[in-house]
Amino acid sequence: MPSRLAKSLLFSTPAECEQAFYEAMANADGEAMAELWLDDEDVCCVHPASPRFLGIEAVRASFATVMSNGPLLITPTVKRAIEAAGLAIHNVVEEVVVDDGNAQRVLHVVATNAYLKTPAGWKMVLHHASPAPDGGVGETEATHGTLH
Amino acid sequence: MPSRLAKSLLFSTPAECEQAFYEAMANADGEAMAELWLDDEDVCCVHPASPRFLGIEAVRASFATVMSNGPLLITPTVKRAIEAAGLAIHNVVEEVVVDDGNAQRVLHVVATNAYLKTPAGWKMVLHHASPAPDGGVGETEATHGTLH
Repeated sequence: MPSRLAKSLLFSTPAECEQAFYEAMANADGEAMAELWLDDEDVCCVHPASPRFLGIEAVRASFATVMSNGPLLITPTVKRAIEAAGLAIHNVVEEVVVDDGNAQRVLHVVATNAYLKTPAGWKMVLHHASPAPDGGVGETEATHGTLH
Repeated sequence: MPSRLAKSLLFSTPAECEQAFYEAMANADGEAMAELWLDDEDVCCVHPASPRFLGIEAVRASFATVMSNGPLLITPTVKRAIEAAGLAIHNVVEEVVVDDGNAQRVLHVVATNAYLKTPAGWKMVLHHASPAPDGGVGETEATHGTLH
């Protein structure tokens, strides 16, 4: 019963919470996903090309929808972190494995994840994901091709 | 000399830094924009459909490119904030005025902005912007149409 075990875990670092986030996606485990978010009306989630979801109920429902098609194998890479006491922001490039039935390919998504320290350990408070252009990893030092 | 004045200002709140960010865009003021970011290699910026820019030099150059076409009138709305001592995360819906020469229209962009408290006041450390679907404001309580 991984979900029940997960419920009793306290994440002692933002990285542990982030690992649990991607494990929940990989297991399509809605209960674990729901549990690792802060239960608060100010949490926020943006999936690629999705509307913005505000508040824990909308966020949980959005992940239930996202994971209703099954597990999502996502590897966060090229991490950058900005942290202060009690709040951490990670920006990652997600490698998302997509299986079209015949073959697997990897899409790239840029994601900002944020974690807040609570008495119950670190909890996720924000996930903002958007497709990287041309399916590639962002050119981290590039100065061209931008459009606000 | 607004830019020189801006350089000497300390932003005493994240909101002041955010206001300066959108004013710099509205004035196409690259110097003010450069100054309000934290001078650090871990700052991060994602413009809509752009690669990810990491580090202050790449971020500043990206805004120089973005603003090279002139002022960008952007109004942040429907703000949500998550704050802890020394670090603040804002998520907003940006109303971006686009002028195609004949008429003006408003596009919607979802943006996550983050600010860090420093001895020199609050500084911007992250801007992650992505288009809202169908040009509309995100349906904040919607549970459909998501795709991770």
